[in-house]
Amino acid sequence: VSVAYLGPEGTFTARAAALVAPTEAHVPLPTIPDVVDAVRTGAVDRGVVPIENSIEGAVNVTLDALAFGEPGVFIRGEQALPIAMALLARPGTALADVTEVRSHPMALPQCRRWLAVALPGAALAAAASTARAAEEVAAGPPGLAALGPADAADRLGLAVLADDVQDHDGNETRFVVLGRRMPAPTGADKTSMVVFLGADRPGLLMTVLDELALRGINLTKIESRPTKQALGEYCIFIDADGHVTDARVAEALRSIHRHVAELKVLGTYPRGDGHHVRVDVANGEHAYAGAARWFDGLLAHVDPA
Amino acid sequence: VSVAYLGPEGTFTARAAALVAPTEAHVPLPTIPDVVDAVRTGAVDRGVVPIENSIEGAVNVTLDALAFGEPGVFIRGEQALPIAMALLARPGTALADVTEVRSHPMALPQCRRWLAVALPGAALAAAASTARAAEEVAAGPPGLAALGPADAADRLGLAVLADDVQDHDGNETRFVVLGRRMPAPTGADKTSMVVFLGADRPGLLMTVLDELALRGINLTKIESRPTKQALGEYCIFIDADGHVTDARVAEALRSIHRHVAELKVLGTYPRGDGHHVRVDVANGEHAYAGAARWFDGLLAHVDPA
Amino acid sequence: VSVAYLGPEGTFTARAAALVAPTEAHVPLPTIPDVVDAVRTGAVDRGVVPIENSIEGAVNVTLDALAFGEPGVFIRGEQALPIAMALLARPGTALADVTEVRSHPMALPQCRRWLAVALPGAALAAAASTARAAEEVAAGPPGLAALGPADAADRLGLAVLADDVQDHDGNETRFVVLGRRMPAPTGADKTSMVVFLGADRPGLLMTVLDELALRGINLTKIESRPTKQALGEYCIFIDADGHVTDARVAEALRSIHRHVAELKVLGTYPRGDGHHVRVDVANGEHAYAGAARWFDGLLAHVDPA
Amino acid sequence: VSVAYLGPEGTFTARAAALVAPTEAHVPLPTIPDVVDAVRTGAVDRGVVPIENSIEGAVNVTLDALAFGEPGVFIRGEQALPIAMALLARPGTALADVTEVRSHPMALPQCRRWLAVALPGAALAAAASTARAAEEVAAGPPGLAALGPADAADRLGLAVLADDVQDHDGNETRFVVLGRRMPAPTGADKTSMVVFLGADRPGLLMTVLDELALRGINLTKIESRPTKQALGEYCIFIDADGHVTDARVAEALRSIHRHVAELKVLGTYPRGDGHHVRVDVANGEHAYAGAARWFDGLLAHVDPA
Repeated sequence: VSVAYLGPEGTFTARAAALVAPTEAHVPLPTIPDVVDAVRTGAVDRGVVPIENSIEGAVNVTLDALAFGEPGVFIRGEQALPIAMALLARPGTALADVTEVRSHPMALPQCRRWLAVALPGAALAAAASTARAAEEVAAGPPGLAALGPADAADRLGLAVLADDVQDHDGNETRFVVLGRRMPAPTGADKTSMVVFLGADRPGLLMTVLDELALRGINLTKIESRPTKQALGEYCIFIDADGHVTDARVAEALRSIHRHVAELKVLGTYPRGDGHHVRVDVANGEHAYAGAARWFDGLLAHVDPA
Repeated sequence: VSVAYLGPEGTFTARAAALVAPTEAHVPLPTIPDVVDAVRTGAVDRGVVPIENSIEGAVNVTLDALAFGEPGVFIRGEQALPIAMALLARPGTALADVTEVRSHPMALPQCRRWLAVALPGAALAAAASTARAAEEVAAGPPGLAALGPADAADRLGLAVLADDVQDHDGNETRFVVLGRRMPAPTGADKTSMVVFLGADRPGLLMTVLDELALRGINLTKIESRPTKQALGEYCIFIDADGHVTDARVAEALRSIHRHVAELKVLGTYPRGDGHHVRVDVANGEHAYAGAARWFDGLLAHVDPA
Repeated sequence: VSVAYLGPEGTFTARAAALVAPTEAHVPLPTIPDVVDAVRTGAVDRGVVPIENSIEGAVNVTLDALAFGEPGVFIRGEQALPIAMALLARPGTALADVTEVRSHPMALPQCRRWLAVALPGAALAAAASTARAAEEVAAGPPGLAALGPADAADRLGLAVLADDVQDHDGNETRFVVLGRRMPAPTGADKTSMVVFLGADRPGLLMTVLDELALRGINLTKIESRPTKQALGEYCIFIDADGHVTDARVAEALRSIHRHVAELKVLGTYPRGDGHHVRVDVANGEHAYAGAARWFDGLLAHVDPA
Repeated sequence: VSVAYLGPEGTFTARAAALVAPTEAHVPLPTIPDVVDAVRTGAVDRGVVPIENSIEGAVNVTLDALAFGEPGVFIRGEQALPIAMALLARPGTALADVTEVRSHPMALPQCRRWLAVALPGAALAAAASTARAAEEVAAGPPGLAALGPADAADRLGLAVLADDVQDHDGNETRFVVLGRRMPAPTGADKTSMVVFLGADRPGLLMTVLDELALRGINLTKIESRPTKQALGEYCIFIDADGHVTDARVAEALRSIHRHVAELKVLGTYPRGDGHHVRVDVANGEHAYAGAARWFDGLLAHVDPA
């Protein structure tokens, strides 16, 4: 099994790919659409890309590649990773020597409070990625430092001047594993979908959410995004509890399909946290089977058409 | 085909039975449960009983007989009848001669305004039915008058002193036709059901109604009634648009069945007014079939369990 | 304080009136609209009428008198009463002597199972009320018996041949106390209203119920009834937890008022069972007051129009 | 009036700031939090930052700065801007000469299809911003080209090799204008808010959306985002029609405030498209005023507590 991931080496995505598939061959690719395409065409078996809260800011690109791209690629797993930012510099550099800090434009503000206290005089400069910032520091003049993952230090021969310098604890990025098929249910699953609401119909979003709520299906994420046609035309990305083969999820998906312009299931897969989904009796498999039997009994009293 | 109805002869129910089944043999029975039982046991093929807004006040008895009685009897049709009240007296009686007016206790207040103007000094007395009041008038002393259907006059040799004396125009009673099977769909159908909510679960009624509303199924009637266990424990009688074999109705019924303690379909039958039910595209048969095909296509990408 | 009630003496309503106002002067009146009018005009201070599950079948008349009658009369209390049916006959009559049983047309079917076992050969005959049936038995030939409240026996010199013969235990009737004003809140209150939905607007009933559900207001009763204009035009009677001066009830009523053709509050009054209404934090008085303060703080940042 | 914006000069944000405030003094600042802080502290009067679909990918930083930052800054306006990407190179460079294309990591994939056709052999390289890519091209070796706004060409003495090369037409970015107060209503307004749902309460999001839907308030955007505490704890950003002083919006906000852990209004401001919000009768100012009068009339019949 071969695994492509959003490169370069040394990013948080590389680390997620290693966790997801420790023994497989890994292929870094330059962009998220490249990873998605490599999976679709069969060039690789799996892909790993960030999808949420990435320091690299790649979420939207991933969502768009899955929602608007060619069919045939599905999310088949997820992996969350704690994001700890370290201040990296060439060996021998002291904190007091740092005059400029480089990182991804989204990483800098995440450490702003720490920087204001520890390095009040340092200039802040943007780099294309946290890995690229570390490379620039390794190749650059003294006084440069980078904000990025601590393990980039080993790879590039840098020193960690300070670790865990992000302002907010508990920062994590969620990565998804892509493939050409979706796995069977485990009891601890989730389903990702994107809903295109079509013509401006007030209340249609409520209808979609109601179809899920009525069946006791919890949302773990909802996000409206432009459809790339014009600002104001939206699609809705939804992550929901359960597997598409669960009776309640299957019926909810078919119902949403009837209401909206288009429904695309991005994937059904085991939850990264392994938490089993609690389903109340009325929405469980037994209740669905019982209702079907009851209804068949009723039909026996109806004349044929 | 034999037809039982709530007697005696000469009531509004008898007239409804004649409209429903003009050429069949008609059997008046003394109580509504008697009619229901006659259908259930096969003693007759059809039954006709009032179910709504009856001057005879029989609605609840009908609902209870269908909801709490033995299974095997279904509503298979309905017939609405305009209710016009006439003042009946023995021939030769003038309006000025009337000293006492008799009728069913629910019929008297429905003519109260007219009585206050036309017969301000007359005493009002209750009778067991409008037909019985007319019989008492036919057999009684002069000065008596009855409020009831005008055609009782012919049958009993009475005169119509005044017609259409009810305070509210447009008064109608709805009757239902009972049988042991339900007819096939006509496109202009309705479905009657009773829902037992079970343990006190706030919001459960909303869930039931939402299952109908989400599928575009209109209610034409809703009524909570005690379950005869204790005041405060309720069941809900609902009349809804559509036939049980319509995809949207079938799915709504199965869904409600999962939520509630008990769901009993009282019948599915052509609407008395013949109005075809308008179904929007998302809730029509094509949309259901399309959603099923789409979902099957999705499942082809999911690994077997 | 003078109290009118639906007579005659000896009915269950008379007993309810005695419980509601033990020491006051009581006035039996022949019809429910008469009681309502006596309160409205100030002829009496209070009225007591049955409103639900009455053996006398008077519910609809009461609802209609309150919903469609002249304004100025409100429900200000309620009283539930267990309904026990006794078989009454002249002293010296044995069960085996009974050849005919008389009662209100709704009382007879409620004892049908007992009658089928104990008096399989007896004829059943309708009377205008349970009290009137007992009077007819007292004045009639031997072999007659009446189904009615046991305490009618004392009043009329009858014997109780059997007591508690109704088929269903736990049968109760709820009576309401009418007045020209509504009482202040007690913490254990309910509010009765009638909603006229106006033009055929699918989903409007759901909107009304949602306005209550969103504020955590439970329904204890819901019933659609024709508006007396034409079959198919409905109004909805709703009993809900809480007093009109509770913030959540006040806001719900104002909201419903905006949606519907007409909203009429029939009364706000202490619950007969004395159960305090449990309100979750988000719908309590503190939450409403806190939200109002928060919003005023926000407005301080908005430029004046 | 002084206006800060997310720099550097030459970006799309600078252009938006010029449209919003053509004649005022403009101050470019390096990060979005810097702009927000400058407004909060009074260093400037207005701030302009991208909030949606920005090629610069700055949305989340803006949302977070407004949602999690110190209070005192509000959105008081918005400005949409079409995003057209041009290929920029040093004068004299032909398309056939281009061997490497640089741009922001989110801009490259947005032109992927054009690049694959027009420059199949060119290397793609990430830069910190579109403006920075253009600067690198101006200072770099021949054969370099940048994807960015065409007007950067003039500023840096570059040539436009191709214009409008983005794969999707109709691409726009929405910018918001920040201030310390919010403007009065115009009739064509919107309100931005963030809702913190608090403890895991399934259905709470539905409640929030229902409070808006019941009052006919359309959503133009909804997005769940981690609260920076831990993955899985979410807040919801919502843009809704109407101004906070509209009766329906005011009541909806107070209602949501009661349900959720925290509600923060990010701003109320004129819609960029100037479309007046259509409000149906039941949710308009007259309906609210009428309901208040009706309810006061009802209270006159309730005894004081």
